Amino acid sequence: MSWQTYLSNNRTRFIQELIDFISIPSISALPQHKDDVRRAAEWLKTRLDTAGMNHAMLINTAGHPAVYADWLHAPDKPTILLYGHYDVQPVDPLDQWVSPPFEPQIRDGKIYGRGASDDKGNIIATVQTLEAILRATGKFDVNVKCIFEGEEEIGSPTLGPAIAQHRDLLACDHIFSMDGLQWGEHAAGILVGLKGMAKLQINVFGPKTDQHSGLFGATIQNPTTALAHILASLRSPEGKVLVNGFYADVRPLTDQDRAHLAAVPFDSIAIQRTVGVTALSGEPGYSPLERMWARPTLDVNGIWGGFQGAGSKTIIPASAHAKITCRLVADQNPEHIADLIETHIHHHTPPGVRVEVEKSSGAHPFLMSPDHPSNILVQDVLSELYGSDPYYVRVGGSVPVYAVFERELGVQPATMGFTLEDEQLHAPNEFWRLESFDRCQMAYGILLHEF
Amino acid sequence: MSWQTYLSNNRTRFIQELIDFISIPSISALPQHKDDVRRAAEWLKTRLDTAGMNHAMLINTAGHPAVYADWLHAPDKPTILLYGHYDVQPVDPLDQWVSPPFEPQIRDGKIYGRGASDDKGNIIATVQTLEAILRATGKFDVNVKCIFEGEEEIGSPTLGPAIAQHRDLLACDHIFSMDGLQWGEHAAGILVGLKGMAKLQINVFGPKTDQHSGLFGATIQNPTTALAHILASLRSPEGKVLVNGFYADVRPLTDQDRAHLAAVPFDSIAIQRTVGVTALSGEPGYSPLERMWARPTLDVNGIWGGFQGAGSKTIIPASAHAKITCRLVADQNPEHIADLIETHIHHHTPPGVRVEVEKSSGAHPFLMSPDHPSNILVQDVLSELYGSDPYYVRVGGSVPVYAVFERELGVQPATMGFTLEDEQLHAPNEFWRLESFDRCQMAYGILLHEF
Repeated sequence: MSWQTYLSNNRTRFIQELIDFISIPSISALPQHKDDVRRAAEWLKTRLDTAGMNHAMLINTAGHPAVYADWLHAPDKPTILLYGHYDVQPVDPLDQWVSPPFEPQIRDGKIYGRGASDDKGNIIATVQTLEAILRATGKFDVNVKCIFEGEEEIGSPTLGPAIAQHRDLLACDHIFSMDGLQWGEHAAGILVGLKGMAKLQINVFGPKTDQHSGLFGATIQNPTTALAHILASLRSPEGKVLVNGFYADVRPLTDQDRAHLAAVPFDSIAIQRTVGVTALSGEPGYSPLERMWARPTLDVNGIWGGFQGAGSKTIIPASAHAKITCRLVADQNPEHIADLIETHIHHHTPPGVRVEVEKSSGAHPFLMSPDHPSNILVQDVLSELYGSDPYYVRVGGSVPVYAVFERELGVQPATMGFTLEDEQLHAPNEFWRLESFDRCQMAYGILLHEF
Repeated sequence: MSWQTYLSNNRTRFIQELIDFISIPSISALPQHKDDVRRAAEWLKTRLDTAGMNHAMLINTAGHPAVYADWLHAPDKPTILLYGHYDVQPVDPLDQWVSPPFEPQIRDGKIYGRGASDDKGNIIATVQTLEAILRATGKFDVNVKCIFEGEEEIGSPTLGPAIAQHRDLLACDHIFSMDGLQWGEHAAGILVGLKGMAKLQINVFGPKTDQHSGLFGATIQNPTTALAHILASLRSPEGKVLVNGFYADVRPLTDQDRAHLAAVPFDSIAIQRTVGVTALSGEPGYSPLERMWARPTLDVNGIWGGFQGAGSKTIIPASAHAKITCRLVADQNPEHIADLIETHIHHHTPPGVRVEVEKSSGAHPFLMSPDHPSNILVQDVLSELYGSDPYYVRVGGSVPVYAVFERELGVQPATMGFTLEDEQLHAPNEFWRLESFDRCQMAYGILLHEF
């Protein structure tokens, strides 16, 4: 029997397992679900064991546990590490769910439930494929290790130390992450870049308490106005960052990068409609997609200070504040960028106020060559499945675990997940197409069996 | 018997009346105290009647009533109108009061209670002086009218129409307001200027909801950054207003103004210490006191937009907002200034956002000549009482009723009140010096008897 036949024969059981797995409310962000997270880890460990994998176990961390298993019976063959996460996002607002988030329902060929597409579906489909290959053929052509973490949705805060501690256990030649998107139902994409992040908060302090603007407006500095001058000095009205040295380490786009970017369908009118703006804008000299994927930004995420209520209150506020995050690209260093911004702020502070810059720990950008051997493998699988070449895609978001793998194991992870952007990730009524379930099994089957 | 002896003989009763009047919680801002405000008005009407005044009555307004009375038995003599307000500020935070705000206590020659100095004490002392003069001498040398309003602490919103409606009843040659400060325990001051006000709110709208900064930070305008550029364009870092035409109607300081300003003791180090700043700052080319008293300002009272919580949230906020008030000087017009600012804002809005400017009704500035006949009368009284010439003082605050009197009755009000700046106005533990109670009686006695 082929592994494909095995999958097909067991599909009803496998779909039931998908339902069972989603039913465990493994919300990593909420302390009251701590035991549920562990229960999901135990369930997954048992499932890896029954799939025929060896050494299934929990790796305890300072937070939620990771789940490990391996199959290492292919001497002189490469070792691959499969990564995914079994934790899920919170479910608020609960009243917007058509069916309860942890009582999965199948409607119109889609399974609805929290974690269906992000990322439990991809995990269980892959584990079932491991079983199918082992039961049908008795072996893999490569050595296989799995690590499934329980803290991705809270930024993988404790995964780094856990990986560092188990560096030998997790040593590998390739990493494939099943926490990823495809471009569309009929178009594949390979993730080659993620942005890093620098984080700061600016606190501007003026008088010790709010002051009467009639008494003191003419003669003391206003922290909100001072903050406005600082923020305006950081970025041109269009969005070019004006901090000295900010762009110095940005790796320029190669000809191959530009060709890959140009190949990607991009509809700026559709984006404007989705977001609700009348025009796109940003750093001059770059196309929207170049900016979104390959140029760093400085984004004010929030500002506050003084009176925010109805009517008016004629005060000079005691303080004003701004939260800033920068999305960084290779080879910008988050600590260095935060330092440059801090220096800039102090140079551009108007007289009469005191400014404090709070820097938080950031994330390194991630950039992987489209020609990386792991990406070549993913490309072969996706081209076969979709019947066309995948797009090479970057994402403006930051996924800390990528930098963790690169730093701790020396391996850049390739991404092959089968979630689609419209599947209500992190939102009510998350769902996964059962077509993607089947495709995920096929993809990992091809990868592991025909490596 | 002289009116002075009458005051002295009745001091115990008069202090008890002060206590009774303060005991009525006439908080105009709070709907649950509406009946208390009216009760205070009725109490005051009765008290004017027993003082020997005629036609004591309530003038109903769209809000809280005003109290009126007159004595018009000096044909061919001028008519003066006495103004004060019997409403008081709210009392929060209640737990900071040493004795309850509406159970007045006398400690160390001071009476503690809400409204003691602002403005019930000045009112009752003056009404008692009316009684003293009428009982002791049988008459005034002038015709006297009183109007005591119940909405000063909420900006006198309905007084204007009420005065317009009773223009003949209130017609007069001089107005004296007992809602005012003296310079210090041993130094008098005459108020000659108040600032006006223009009010606006800026609303900057970007995407229809908050957006992921990784996905859209590089390619849509950020409303908070756009707001920062707008605010920075309105004012130089030092505080000079950069709006075209803003200063065009400002009346320059005369030589007399400068001499009066120079005579006023001004301790910038003391102000820095009080306010808690390390340096004063403001529009270049003017001294701190010139700026505070005679130059207009543009003050941001509050800003907000996006995420304000702990940690970080990587969004491009959907909107950002700022509240702005301008303190205006003669002869700036609040509507015209608000229009100039609105035009400036639209000219300085970065691309990619929509801006809405909400203008609220403002207040006209007030400027009175030190040589105005009413001020000459006040100067005579104060010089006699204090044994030295008063300072000519301006205040950065706005008191709408001054412009109302000027507009509706054609008379600029002179100010003679005996509150001192340290008496916790609008704050817990408001008090009034009984020395000021006596001085207020003497002052109005001299004014009315020796007109």
